[in-house]
Amino acid sequence: MDINIPTIKAEVEAAFRRYEAALMGNDVAVLNELFWESGETIRYGPQEALYGFQEISGYRSTRDVSDIARELTRTVITTYGTDHATAFTEYRRLSNGRRGRQSQTWVRMPAGWRVVAAHVSLLPAPD
Amino acid sequence: MDINIPTIKAEVEAAFRRYEAALMGNDVAVLNELFWESGETIRYGPQEALYGFQEISGYRSTRDVSDIARELTRTVITTYGTDHATAFTEYRRLSNGRRGRQSQTWVRMPAGWRVVAAHVSLLPAPD
Repeated sequence: MDINIPTIKAEVEAAFRRYEAALMGNDVAVLNELFWESGETIRYGPQEALYGFQEISGYRSTRDVSDIARELTRTVITTYGTDHATAFTEYRRLSNGRRGRQSQTWVRMPAGWRVVAAHVSLLPAPD
Repeated sequence: MDINIPTIKAEVEAAFRRYEAALMGNDVAVLNELFWESGETIRYGPQEALYGFQEISGYRSTRDVSDIARELTRTVITTYGTDHATAFTEYRRLSNGRRGRQSQTWVRMPAGWRVVAAHVSLLPAPD
């Protein structure tokens, strides 16, 4: 299995950037588009666990986005073969400096690259 | 791409169980065996971010395991085709009741199924 084929990695990087832009703009349609529309999709958020696309899209529609701006501080995207990838990033919230991590597993589905599973967590607040 | 082919899912479930048993027994050799031996491997722990197999195995060798016992409260393993999988589990620490989540992306490498990326986080302590 070839790791980080440049053309494949570029595809996933583009999908990742599109996701991040949608998150910052709270573009719920794009966020939903980029998650796999399946009962198997899973997303652990900072405080919640969402099982299946319906729970994830339901969460999107009601989310408080008043404090969402962040900068990505270290991002690692890795591709495995032609149809699978992981995208891990550390981030810092601009408003309060809280640090967190977002990890995603991406799979190339018939409709395009989709997040099939994701996990977001906040680091403990500094002393 | 076939999702959750029963024979493939059974393979990943067995690897996942082996990992959990090694974690509970602090069997560092097996934990290291089951992580992909690559500079691309990544593991976000509850408080640390580890980049590459060397950082991960170094962490294993010095970890405080005095308070490691846990029960898994909800586990979802999903396979994508024959060589890729995600394993997500919620858990509860037996000593103090703290709840957390562990997510792993598994890939079938020439030597067998390996964790290529993982993310572990603790939920905020209840009020």
